[in-house]
Amino acid sequence: MSKVFCDISTSLDGYVTGLNQRLDAPFGDGPARAELHRWALEAAEENAVERERVIDAGAFIMGRNMFDPHRGAWDPEWTGWWGAEPPYHGPVFVLTHHERDDLVMDGGTTFHFVTGGITEALDRAKAAAGDRWVSIAGGASTANQYLGAGLVDELRLHIAPYVLGAGERLFTGVRPFGLTPVEVRHTAATTHVRYVIGS
Amino acid sequence: MSKVFCDISTSLDGYVTGLNQRLDAPFGDGPARAELHRWALEAAEENAVERERVIDAGAFIMGRNMFDPHRGAWDPEWTGWWGAEPPYHGPVFVLTHHERDDLVMDGGTTFHFVTGGITEALDRAKAAAGDRWVSIAGGASTANQYLGAGLVDELRLHIAPYVLGAGERLFTGVRPFGLTPVEVRHTAATTHVRYVIGS
Repeated sequence: MSKVFCDISTSLDGYVTGLNQRLDAPFGDGPARAELHRWALEAAEENAVERERVIDAGAFIMGRNMFDPHRGAWDPEWTGWWGAEPPYHGPVFVLTHHERDDLVMDGGTTFHFVTGGITEALDRAKAAAGDRWVSIAGGASTANQYLGAGLVDELRLHIAPYVLGAGERLFTGVRPFGLTPVEVRHTAATTHVRYVIGS
Repeated sequence: MSKVFCDISTSLDGYVTGLNQRLDAPFGDGPARAELHRWALEAAEENAVERERVIDAGAFIMGRNMFDPHRGAWDPEWTGWWGAEPPYHGPVFVLTHHERDDLVMDGGTTFHFVTGGITEALDRAKAAAGDRWVSIAGGASTANQYLGAGLVDELRLHIAPYVLGAGERLFTGVRPFGLTPVEVRHTAATTHVRYVIGS
């Protein structure tokens, strides 16, 4: 059976993005993109193992706001942030309230728009992933819904050495739970910690 | 010149204590004491290096609520949580609005009650510490005041593999700032990360 991971970069104070995400600032106000994702953007070679794991999944689930932060104005022509050939190279299930036909991109990525909620998205993602893992790709709200429902097996955090001060937090609204750290690796740009959920 | 560290245990979601700290529950509601401090309480040998560093300082500063969580009812006879011989073995400056004579304990610990605010407490602690470091011992509010004022040189976090869900957070009210991680060590009960403040 396919397992589920959530792989996400956070500030030291627990934010995964700044406030006011929007089309011209998809990571919101402040330096969230530069500071939280420096390990992947600027220190790619040193962090190659963790970078490759982010997209090593048989299927992906993301929130509508990660796919398309149009702030309420659904754009039926929007094809995502990732250009003609997104890095997923597999099925991506987008949680949304808007019906839309599948969107087939170059290189094997297809966006499927799921209106039936997180359980339907996970069922479809697991069926599509086969023996491979399912990735909860983000953003904060989607990660928190799956964490809160107890549907995530492994949490991979990349904790940036930066206090952001405001934004969208990981773990908001989630009930207490224990984890078991299974791997820690430190580079200058981040601290990678991999946790199995459950203590 | 004496440098300043803050050494503090947090949950994975950034809480350093539960809500409603009080005399019969000094870590507040929930399992904050057991989960956040397991590394020091139950895995003391494995974490001996980090445990010893907590109290390796020439002077300490703590908030009134850490010394005495009587929730507003100042008890002039209260001598702290630590018995006749507290583990500090040096001067401890307690931030308070209540004047009180110095309280001399066994083993070299003296509690000094400082009514002039965080700068006065730090000046007095640095003068007392000589060449040794000053520790900002907690709790969250005191740590955040010193972090927010840019008065801390080194932050040592012990990040427990537990999501607490509610409590008092580190970094509340602090403006954005960068840090440089200088040491990471992982044990089963916690992830120790030592940061120099500044990027």
